[in-house]
Amino acid sequence: MKATIALLHAFGASLRIETVEIPPLRDGQILVRVEAAGICGSDVHMWQGKDPRTPLPMILGHEGVGRIVDIDGEKRDIHGQPLQPGDLIIWERGVTCGECYQCAVRKQPALCPHRWVYGIYRGYETPPHLNGCYASHIILDPRTQLIVLPEGSQPLRYVAASCSGATAAHALDMATPRIGDTVVIFGPGPLGAYATLLAKASGAEQIVLVGGTASRLEICHAMGATLLLNRHETTDLERQEAIQSITHGRGADIVIEASGSVAAAQEALDVVAQGGQLLLVGFGTPVSDMKLRPFEQVVRKNVSLRGVWVSDVGHTLQALSLVRQHPDLFDQLITHRYPLEEATRGLQSVTDRRAMKAVLLP
Amino acid sequence: MKATIALLHAFGASLRIETVEIPPLRDGQILVRVEAAGICGSDVHMWQGKDPRTPLPMILGHEGVGRIVDIDGEKRDIHGQPLQPGDLIIWERGVTCGECYQCAVRKQPALCPHRWVYGIYRGYETPPHLNGCYASHIILDPRTQLIVLPEGSQPLRYVAASCSGATAAHALDMATPRIGDTVVIFGPGPLGAYATLLAKASGAEQIVLVGGTASRLEICHAMGATLLLNRHETTDLERQEAIQSITHGRGADIVIEASGSVAAAQEALDVVAQGGQLLLVGFGTPVSDMKLRPFEQVVRKNVSLRGVWVSDVGHTLQALSLVRQHPDLFDQLITHRYPLEEATRGLQSVTDRRAMKAVLLP
Amino acid sequence: MKATIALLHAFGASLRIETVEIPPLRDGQILVRVEAAGICGSDVHMWQGKDPRTPLPMILGHEGVGRIVDIDGEKRDIHGQPLQPGDLIIWERGVTCGECYQCAVRKQPALCPHRWVYGIYRGYETPPHLNGCYASHIILDPRTQLIVLPEGSQPLRYVAASCSGATAAHALDMATPRIGDTVVIFGPGPLGAYATLLAKASGAEQIVLVGGTASRLEICHAMGATLLLNRHETTDLERQEAIQSITHGRGADIVIEASGSVAAAQEALDVVAQGGQLLLVGFGTPVSDMKLRPFEQVVRKNVSLRGVWVSDVGHTLQALSLVRQHPDLFDQLITHRYPLEEATRGLQSVTDRRAMKAVLLP
Amino acid sequence: MKATIALLHAFGASLRIETVEIPPLRDGQILVRVEAAGICGSDVHMWQGKDPRTPLPMILGHEGVGRIVDIDGEKRDIHGQPLQPGDLIIWERGVTCGECYQCAVRKQPALCPHRWVYGIYRGYETPPHLNGCYASHIILDPRTQLIVLPEGSQPLRYVAASCSGATAAHALDMATPRIGDTVVIFGPGPLGAYATLLAKASGAEQIVLVGGTASRLEICHAMGATLLLNRHETTDLERQEAIQSITHGRGADIVIEASGSVAAAQEALDVVAQGGQLLLVGFGTPVSDMKLRPFEQVVRKNVSLRGVWVSDVGHTLQALSLVRQHPDLFDQLITHRYPLEEATRGLQSVTDRRAMKAVLLP
Repeated sequence: MKATIALLHAFGASLRIETVEIPPLRDGQILVRVEAAGICGSDVHMWQGKDPRTPLPMILGHEGVGRIVDIDGEKRDIHGQPLQPGDLIIWERGVTCGECYQCAVRKQPALCPHRWVYGIYRGYETPPHLNGCYASHIILDPRTQLIVLPEGSQPLRYVAASCSGATAAHALDMATPRIGDTVVIFGPGPLGAYATLLAKASGAEQIVLVGGTASRLEICHAMGATLLLNRHETTDLERQEAIQSITHGRGADIVIEASGSVAAAQEALDVVAQGGQLLLVGFGTPVSDMKLRPFEQVVRKNVSLRGVWVSDVGHTLQALSLVRQHPDLFDQLITHRYPLEEATRGLQSVTDRRAMKAVLLP
Repeated sequence: MKATIALLHAFGASLRIETVEIPPLRDGQILVRVEAAGICGSDVHMWQGKDPRTPLPMILGHEGVGRIVDIDGEKRDIHGQPLQPGDLIIWERGVTCGECYQCAVRKQPALCPHRWVYGIYRGYETPPHLNGCYASHIILDPRTQLIVLPEGSQPLRYVAASCSGATAAHALDMATPRIGDTVVIFGPGPLGAYATLLAKASGAEQIVLVGGTASRLEICHAMGATLLLNRHETTDLERQEAIQSITHGRGADIVIEASGSVAAAQEALDVVAQGGQLLLVGFGTPVSDMKLRPFEQVVRKNVSLRGVWVSDVGHTLQALSLVRQHPDLFDQLITHRYPLEEATRGLQSVTDRRAMKAVLLP
Repeated sequence: MKATIALLHAFGASLRIETVEIPPLRDGQILVRVEAAGICGSDVHMWQGKDPRTPLPMILGHEGVGRIVDIDGEKRDIHGQPLQPGDLIIWERGVTCGECYQCAVRKQPALCPHRWVYGIYRGYETPPHLNGCYASHIILDPRTQLIVLPEGSQPLRYVAASCSGATAAHALDMATPRIGDTVVIFGPGPLGAYATLLAKASGAEQIVLVGGTASRLEICHAMGATLLLNRHETTDLERQEAIQSITHGRGADIVIEASGSVAAAQEALDVVAQGGQLLLVGFGTPVSDMKLRPFEQVVRKNVSLRGVWVSDVGHTLQALSLVRQHPDLFDQLITHRYPLEEATRGLQSVTDRRAMKAVLLP
Repeated sequence: MKATIALLHAFGASLRIETVEIPPLRDGQILVRVEAAGICGSDVHMWQGKDPRTPLPMILGHEGVGRIVDIDGEKRDIHGQPLQPGDLIIWERGVTCGECYQCAVRKQPALCPHRWVYGIYRGYETPPHLNGCYASHIILDPRTQLIVLPEGSQPLRYVAASCSGATAAHALDMATPRIGDTVVIFGPGPLGAYATLLAKASGAEQIVLVGGTASRLEICHAMGATLLLNRHETTDLERQEAIQSITHGRGADIVIEASGSVAAAQEALDVVAQGGQLLLVGFGTPVSDMKLRPFEQVVRKNVSLRGVWVSDVGHTLQALSLVRQHPDLFDQLITHRYPLEEATRGLQSVTDRRAMKAVLLP
């Protein structure tokens, strides 16, 4: 049997579409026909060669939904349901060991030192080669955590749940709004859009989105944002005053930095309330230093500043629950769709920030 | 009846010892004969005029233990026990409203906008004038939370419990070690000494103290520190390696910055483990900016950086419990004692860092 | 100025409508014109003489919304906003001391030994006499926590927020669903209806309502219930199987007993998942013994069984947030409205379980 | 190579001492020379045939410490340290899958449906046959979580850490005392002794032990109990009053039922404070029904009643930390030692409650 892959062979170059032989399954591997693969902002980083760890050649793609073709042995999904060829599934993008100190004692598999991710850590040279989602087929490791999607599910609605959805769920899991709280989110991309709906689903009454792209802000409005602050139309002082004015002068209970901007993170410290929490979720790669005033911005305000690193399968389940509960909203998130052959165009649409979310349909 | 007071009338000058008339009690006030008054580092700041809010003239002193002389009406202690003249008491240094959003909804009285503190917020001109502990007598507001000490208690053992003890308890309340955890504390002053014993009392197995004064480090050793790192004898890299080597390469579960040094706070981010917590407790006044690398030090490590602002009566009770459980240890903390008349010498001993803890015995 | 009151003078008898003189305000009291007063199930208990603490004569009514007529001095609402005559307000039904061990240390004002409630603890003989909501006017104690409602608010939508809404919020605060969780609620009365919407607002995906009154179940369906199980049409085994079948055989993450039935509480232990939580919220007065099998139902399942006692102002704010977010839903909750003169008929409608929620409009 | 085993071949009969061939290792198995094996109360249940799941013949023993003889492949301990023949180790008694919903989503491996335990779930017929600790050698499954003990450690001090120690740690993890809290423990056996030291290590100031065996109470006193109440010398009312009198009339913050007695569990509900927590830890097998008064004992007191089922490796690490911190105390716990050949006498000593803790030294 053959697979079609879109291969990253040189940084910045067009992905090369190739047809390759699918190797035989062994040791519990699962062969999956990819039905939808999300294009993530970090794929762009890798494509452009900004992530020095990227092994070439490589099949990109860590967000996928597909249908089981074959299983070497038996495998159950996360709920214990036996899997069959033909099942429509999504999978946890990170594979962890389940046995180390972080997995077993701290119960933070996101911090497992053995964690690796499809489409990021393993190049094409590493067997079983089909290690990324920009392809007609992927071979999943037997330790991969799988979730069956209900028959009839729209695959593309779900792809973002396994990356930006799960990461946003991790953030909200670390600092869960109480009913009636005010949440401010910087960055109306896929991460911010998921954070918006997660905040709303946790009972936040006021959700303020700060961003620079009007169309993205509008999508977040549909997701539940109650106040949109375009940073091209407001000063940081005006934003701070707007947030004070809707919170009895207290500031936001929870602030989520989902844009990856140091300036936004610094502004966030000024809009968070005393006793509030600031979550840094948007930084996926090193950036410049962040400055803060320890007494005025952190100690005197009794504020918590928390870093959020990736996610685990529990967070993916939360994101999937949201998609099931609000399917229509997630259709709006997917602004661009491409066949596998046009993967490079897809990457370009995310690079240009034209797309809110672009998906390949291999 | 007369009281003797040590009055701060000009910044940096010797306190003036005066004898004044005690005003009659009204509206539930409580007259207390001060038996011991702690000299806190922030008293030095105020004495030197570094805290711009200080109203002159003023009776300093927010840490006190004393005996009730008279009560205008009825008053119960925090456990509901009716109080009598003659009772030996300690009191919560901050008076809060109990009714505002922070007190009643967030349950964070430390953040009450109406909070004021004996010996800090109210000058001598404000009735009932005897508003600080550097005096033979103090008049307590009826809303002050009181705790009766067992008869026979050594007053001076307890004074620090109401300020550095309670503040350290607040820190450990925000990030409580699990049994077996490793805690690193920067700053072996009274705050760090209390944090040491609190960490030990919470089950921490390894407690590392980083500081520059050998005698203070030794007192922390008696309090339970298992590793002392003198920063005059080690480099920051050596300290980091020492901490890695006792934590299976992971770093510290909890790091407490109790020295008020920005450099220490920055070093703290490098010794905290993935998933760990860093508490900033030592900053009582504005300092220079703190720099951090958001991706490497916070996000990738899934670290929480939390500011700790003052404390409430629950924290004072925790500190008092420690003193009751380990009375001998707290005698070692008190290195200098002065009569009220020598209050200025006491302030000087703290300024010079000769004293670990200095106490006035009015 | 005169007030009209509905006075409970003899258990079981019709309330007596009287016109009385409003006493002058003192010591910070607040005079309020009652615009809507909820009739609670516990009012029926008191009316029927089943609550032995009830002092006669008494003005019933602990759920109220009204407009400020006069204030003796100054008063701010819970957000710090100064209050004026004419403001539309709701108030925390329980008045607590803010100073005792439960209030200040445990931060559980619901357990304050000094807590008293309008319309329950103070009879008509106790000044200022107007101590309940079944009246044209009520005089509020200055320690009462007040919340201003937006101008134009429908008073009757809000009344239940201060009792069943707040109590349900307390329950969900003790055991908050994660996004995607399954919650089972026994008892589709006002408490269960609020619990339904609170569970949904916290992210629960499946909400199962068990009850015996079809019309009440339907209202809960509108509130967000996804499965209705009428106990007249199903056996307990069928209900258990229905719940297993939608939870991958695990049972419910959180179960809320809101009916006050011991049989329901016992059934609840069988439908809760391993590691799940069971909240007892519905028992407002002593009932018969509850039996459980400690090994099979609690230990082997690692289950928590938690009692929920009343609420505090933080819970009231959560309930109010829900009403603001979903005003239409709460109109459906109010099935019966009566003028003050027909208060006895109102009590009867709740006694007969004809009303989901009955409100007086004095 | 040969192993000596003590084989349970018929319920109630003496264990049969046999010499058997050690099978060759495969698939990552680890061969361990057992140096100490604890005799647990549940071993007595199995010996007597009271646990219907017990497959015959069987090697009992789920608490063990030993030295690695051989490893089929590579294996690391929980901290990531590579293991070598000769290493002294202890192991998590339960083996879990790490992949199911309970393990990966709820992070409650104690509830893993695939969990099995050495010396309980697998009879001698199941390869690799050496599945229990009552033997000179045991073969560990590659998924077993291992912890290296420091060279020179006394093996017998550690055995109880992996069962009663870990289970008690699980309890205290579910309800951790705050510094200054009062904890009441019913049942001064190994579980209660560990709970005592865990409570003390978590900062509890007052620890009350209720039991019927004076010698066991005395050992708990050495562990940190501050008040011993012998139930043969006090009535339940006297015990309740004693607890009220040391808690300002409030009752205990945390109560731990570690005796397996339904009467004790019922008494526990009367001594727990409002807002307190009751942990049921002592029930390892079905018992008679427990009765409670839902309103008075649970709801009105806002009490949590929580079942505690077994433990995971994180709890074992906590118990081991205590042994390292207080080695001398744990020597007192081991009152009886037997060679493997006298395993039956060991079982008898636990049956008769003569032993606090009996250990086999094979």
